[in-house]
Amino acid sequence: MQLSFRWYGNTDPVTLKQIKQIPDMKNIVSAIYDVPVGEVWTKDKINSLKSSIEQEGLTLSVIESLPVHESIKLGEANRDGLIENYKESLRTLGNSGIKTVCYNFMPVFDWTRSNLNYELEDGSKTLMYDNDFIKDIAPVTTNLNLPGWDESYTKEEMAALIEKYRQIDEEDLWKNLEYFLNEVLPVAIEHDIDLTIHPDDPPWSIFGIPRIIKTKESYQRLISINSSKNNGICFCTGSLGCLEENDLPEIIKEFGDHIHFVHMRNIKRLDNHSFVESGHLSKYGSINMKEVVRALKAIDYKGTIRPDHGRMIWGETGKAGYGLFDRALGATYINGLIEGVETNDSTIS
Amino acid sequence: MQLSFRWYGNTDPVTLKQIKQIPDMKNIVSAIYDVPVGEVWTKDKINSLKSSIEQEGLTLSVIESLPVHESIKLGEANRDGLIENYKESLRTLGNSGIKTVCYNFMPVFDWTRSNLNYELEDGSKTLMYDNDFIKDIAPVTTNLNLPGWDESYTKEEMAALIEKYRQIDEEDLWKNLEYFLNEVLPVAIEHDIDLTIHPDDPPWSIFGIPRIIKTKESYQRLISINSSKNNGICFCTGSLGCLEENDLPEIIKEFGDHIHFVHMRNIKRLDNHSFVESGHLSKYGSINMKEVVRALKAIDYKGTIRPDHGRMIWGETGKAGYGLFDRALGATYINGLIEGVETNDSTIS
Repeated sequence: MQLSFRWYGNTDPVTLKQIKQIPDMKNIVSAIYDVPVGEVWTKDKINSLKSSIEQEGLTLSVIESLPVHESIKLGEANRDGLIENYKESLRTLGNSGIKTVCYNFMPVFDWTRSNLNYELEDGSKTLMYDNDFIKDIAPVTTNLNLPGWDESYTKEEMAALIEKYRQIDEEDLWKNLEYFLNEVLPVAIEHDIDLTIHPDDPPWSIFGIPRIIKTKESYQRLISINSSKNNGICFCTGSLGCLEENDLPEIIKEFGDHIHFVHMRNIKRLDNHSFVESGHLSKYGSINMKEVVRALKAIDYKGTIRPDHGRMIWGETGKAGYGLFDRALGATYINGLIEGVETNDSTIS
Repeated sequence: MQLSFRWYGNTDPVTLKQIKQIPDMKNIVSAIYDVPVGEVWTKDKINSLKSSIEQEGLTLSVIESLPVHESIKLGEANRDGLIENYKESLRTLGNSGIKTVCYNFMPVFDWTRSNLNYELEDGSKTLMYDNDFIKDIAPVTTNLNLPGWDESYTKEEMAALIEKYRQIDEEDLWKNLEYFLNEVLPVAIEHDIDLTIHPDDPPWSIFGIPRIIKTKESYQRLISINSSKNNGICFCTGSLGCLEENDLPEIIKEFGDHIHFVHMRNIKRLDNHSFVESGHLSKYGSINMKEVVRALKAIDYKGTIRPDHGRMIWGETGKAGYGLFDRALGATYINGLIEGVETNDSTIS
């Protein structure tokens, strides 16, 4: 396994030169950000991203994300053309040497938090999810915008989109995912691309909208659609870990062949499905990070891990969860864990 | 074992608020910097330092260093008064709750490097020791000042001091250390203070001046002076590790009862006793950091560890080796190692 760092392209306040100075950091996770969702990623744009990263002595190892258009998730009449575009982007990525692509099937809201600047005891700021607050929001009718919402929608478009999702249930969403995967997986397999689905964040339904990638059972159903290893999983400790019932090492061991990308962050579960994003260390959150690393060793995981979301420390400002400092601290912590556990392979069950 | 961070007081560009945001960082290593070497540290000064640290929710855990006057190391006629002052400072520190004090017995030069801004492949800057360069210097007669030299001396004073040390040999230096320890250890024992001697950095003679704390044999002789656990060792991986013959885990296991303070950093040994200070990760240097942690676990080490010297990364400037960023990365790496190794106690021999 090797570490990677998410970089939001040339407008990211975190630079590639900074990332390169993090010990043992050689791999970049990125995407094309100036192409509207549903349109084709061109060879020129992909190669330009790739070469800007390689110029700094780093490697573009994972695309996160190649986003799935809402019409595909909703199973709307126009989905076939959008899926063709998706396949075309996949082919071009494959031909450019990209072997891991992350996507998600979350309706409307990619990730949801109630507060991006929750202050911890040490004065650092972090992301927080207050379930009591979220569940009382009527997102269509209130004027409140939650952090993380897609700002490319107008309020009316957002309301219409939410209403559409309220007309379908989890079973419909599964069928739409199945339809999508049946179309794109052959292309992924042909180009040796591991398509990895990110779990829902948080892993439960919000605002009366269905969500389906939440638990061990979700992965069982996902793999029943297609058992190819290219039908893959982005294993996100922070998302799955919000549900206490999710035994992370057990899920890793059960679906090891399908895990090709790992997000490592920690969260502290609070009462009633609320949570706060803690620092990466096991002692600060509800997730035992060492047991996650041990499970990854047990499956002989060869893919990339990225230290996910950091707190904002030392006065850093920027994209919530994606500052330089605390993510880098997470990277060296994970490096220490990997090295520490590595000696004792014989004791891993 | 618990982590600690060196802080140079209120003039340090690294602030206590920043240190507090490093995960699991609760302990501060500091000293009084405005009292000339040889004079008494007053209760007021110690308590002022202590309370400034406690106001930020941190603890002053280790004094590094309570410096030993050159006349004590040289065994000069005025040493008794200076040793009385040292004892008085120790008593005051003990009464203020300080239980670990670091010192060294290096003549003239505390640590020696040839370059404080050696550029690594990733653009970061680090400390470097070029033995070919150092051995050709005639420090008394050239105009060259090496980084790390005590700037409180004039060139003439420095020349005179070096000349004095050239008149004594290692045996004399050992006798002077023994004289000093025989005087101060009873005070340390009475106040339950662990006095920890820092190894010579690098652990060999330079400029024709004797050095004595270099190898396993040095510690055998040290402890033969007084076997009390208060006659302690500050185990510095980066200093001892410059000599390939020093088997660090073996030294830790042999002298475990006397180790009360640990400096963890990595160095890459080059040809002919040259070395460069690498990042903390084992893969960058000559020291296997995991084996150091395993040995510390094997002796059930309860003291503090501080991530020693970091590179200068992300454009940081400041005191060479003592920036915030890379030392903090070292801290979380060490935390990961400690946690990773900790599971598997049964395999530690």
